[in-house]
Amino acid sequence: MVNRNPNIANLKAGYLFPEIARRRREYAAAHPDAKIISLGVGNTTEPILPHINAGLVEGARRLGTVEGYSGYQDEGLPELREKISAVFYGGKFTADEIFISDGAKCDIGRLQLLFGRGTPACVQDPTYPVYVDGSVLIGAAGGTGAGSTYSGITYLPCTAENGFFPDLSRIPPKSLVYFCSPNNPTGAVAAKKQLASLVETALAKGSLIIFDAAYSEFIRDSDLPKSIFEIEGAKKCAIEVNSFSKPAGFTGVRLGWTAVPKELRYESGDSIHSDWNRICSTIFNGASNIAQYGGLAALDDEGRKEIRSQTDFYLSNARLIRNTLQEKRISCTGGDNSPYIWAHFPGRDSWEVFAEILEKYQVVTTPGAGFGPAGADYVRFSAFGHRADVEEACARLRK
Amino acid sequence: MVNRNPNIANLKAGYLFPEIARRRREYAAAHPDAKIISLGVGNTTEPILPHINAGLVEGARRLGTVEGYSGYQDEGLPELREKISAVFYGGKFTADEIFISDGAKCDIGRLQLLFGRGTPACVQDPTYPVYVDGSVLIGAAGGTGAGSTYSGITYLPCTAENGFFPDLSRIPPKSLVYFCSPNNPTGAVAAKKQLASLVETALAKGSLIIFDAAYSEFIRDSDLPKSIFEIEGAKKCAIEVNSFSKPAGFTGVRLGWTAVPKELRYESGDSIHSDWNRICSTIFNGASNIAQYGGLAALDDEGRKEIRSQTDFYLSNARLIRNTLQEKRISCTGGDNSPYIWAHFPGRDSWEVFAEILEKYQVVTTPGAGFGPAGADYVRFSAFGHRADVEEACARLRK
Repeated sequence: MVNRNPNIANLKAGYLFPEIARRRREYAAAHPDAKIISLGVGNTTEPILPHINAGLVEGARRLGTVEGYSGYQDEGLPELREKISAVFYGGKFTADEIFISDGAKCDIGRLQLLFGRGTPACVQDPTYPVYVDGSVLIGAAGGTGAGSTYSGITYLPCTAENGFFPDLSRIPPKSLVYFCSPNNPTGAVAAKKQLASLVETALAKGSLIIFDAAYSEFIRDSDLPKSIFEIEGAKKCAIEVNSFSKPAGFTGVRLGWTAVPKELRYESGDSIHSDWNRICSTIFNGASNIAQYGGLAALDDEGRKEIRSQTDFYLSNARLIRNTLQEKRISCTGGDNSPYIWAHFPGRDSWEVFAEILEKYQVVTTPGAGFGPAGADYVRFSAFGHRADVEEACARLRK
Repeated sequence: MVNRNPNIANLKAGYLFPEIARRRREYAAAHPDAKIISLGVGNTTEPILPHINAGLVEGARRLGTVEGYSGYQDEGLPELREKISAVFYGGKFTADEIFISDGAKCDIGRLQLLFGRGTPACVQDPTYPVYVDGSVLIGAAGGTGAGSTYSGITYLPCTAENGFFPDLSRIPPKSLVYFCSPNNPTGAVAAKKQLASLVETALAKGSLIIFDAAYSEFIRDSDLPKSIFEIEGAKKCAIEVNSFSKPAGFTGVRLGWTAVPKELRYESGDSIHSDWNRICSTIFNGASNIAQYGGLAALDDEGRKEIRSQTDFYLSNARLIRNTLQEKRISCTGGDNSPYIWAHFPGRDSWEVFAEILEKYQVVTTPGAGFGPAGADYVRFSAFGHRADVEEACARLRK
């Protein structure tokens, strides 16, 4: 028979979240009466608010009409591309620099095709798994290194000791720098000064930042940057991915975007923007038109109010969880400008803590080790849940 | 700066369809009064029919309700996976062998990650571009060969001489065999006997068939197979991709599926099914829930009647085009069980014929050379168009 892509064998046993789902099912099977509450996966739980939902319904309805029907949209509805540039980047981008996608995770998988297999990558540690796993799949991660790391990836520890912002001097030259702020899983948000030093470092080292801003709408402190493009010089060294999933409740709707400045060049001088266009038209066929009409509704005045109210709701959940943990004298970060709370259990094994919380309180969390070595004694709590469930989980944890 | 994926430079200048769109725009700019009709890209034009559309609208509406809301669906709604197995495969597959996707083209791009870069590939020639371009992107196509071919890909000519069915003895051992029936672009449909010999060859050579059945709903001759899995033994040597795009008008909605039998094994003995699950959960996040509810509606009795009527409509267009070409004594295939008509202009250059038809008749077609060397003197006509436009195009061509 045909050969297996040897890089697949190089992946860790299972993608983190299916693995957690498996352990949850196992527990549920053994304890059929347990009322399990999930604060694990970052999946949204609240209905889409009325104005944005009406945009989706109308997007679906129009496909049944002669005047409203549309087929392939390729890189996305021009109105939506313009609107995203206006709302998120103060009009800094032309519409054709904004590529509409079916979500940040999917786009990161495709983005990795832009670069040579020999391009070094670096990630914050802990990190959202797709940066690493996607690199492994295309053979860009090297062999398995110490612990659960890869030899071709540089891990930049982000821990309580450094305020969850990494030592930038460790970024390899001419590398891809995956950077997520507000961070998943730590919930930490980089300050403007910190991002400025990140951009400065990338420019100096000839590295390219893949900035994941999927949680930017949760930022409440007005002095925290919501986009890497708030930083001078970023257009020469950064791509930004973002998503409607968390702010608008679109996890199941599938809509995101990637901003790719035309200024960006490879070492060879070729345009990264035009390669991205080629890759999207070759192995992708655009996001659902219906989702795109929903996205348009989400970005008008009424829709933005709903995004604010939806993210406020989850941030209130986050506050409840954080307060509960702090009452129990568990040190934690995040949850103020982010829907994730990153709780520290010094010296403990995060899968053990995960199992203990599941068994004692019937609450599902995410073990920090799943996000990288520096997460080994942390557990992530997600604020995506119904209020009653979050309150019940907090009441149990308080016991 | 970072390095470019050297495989990108190995791609031909532009993806075929954007290139055609560019030439069309150029012509339109030079002839602002011309009323151009497109029989080029296979993009659907007719509104989604009422019952299926109501499924989409309801899918959107329910996301605004507490009871109907859903987030990530990963490999797809279980009901939809079951329904697809029942409707298309007589229940031959378990639900978890059917993976819901955002379309056949996107899934083919991801499928290529399953196999080693050294895995030889072979395609029908002419061929739908993504099999080749996707292989190039991940470095599986080798260098540029004669004409516009790649050294690592075997091209199996499908021409009038062999009835548009290739010489299977040329399939390399342990290779990936991309096979599309009804074929895009030739419109030819392989007979049951032919597919049986394809399966037999794949089993004998240890090759894996990636069967693209995206046009199966256009088949009207009841003795023609609509799926590779109608053939005994196929579960041991084939994966099938399919799509709601053309039959249900979902080109902009984005919904397809891939059937991956659990029996499939690599040379190493590892399960292809479980790797596919891993790849989908790693770099994909599922098709839009809304699209999936539309898909459910498309597969109930009422929905299937609409699919029949929608495909009947496009087949009538195809008949009009074919009759017109035949009146002009242009030899052609397809258009009876397929929405494409493949017209032969012996000894001519297809880009020239394309330009001539555009200039003389203001009708956009697709030059066969864009699908491979064996298409060099063919032009593809697509039946996806409003009836009045198709009639007008035929009237012009008749002159």
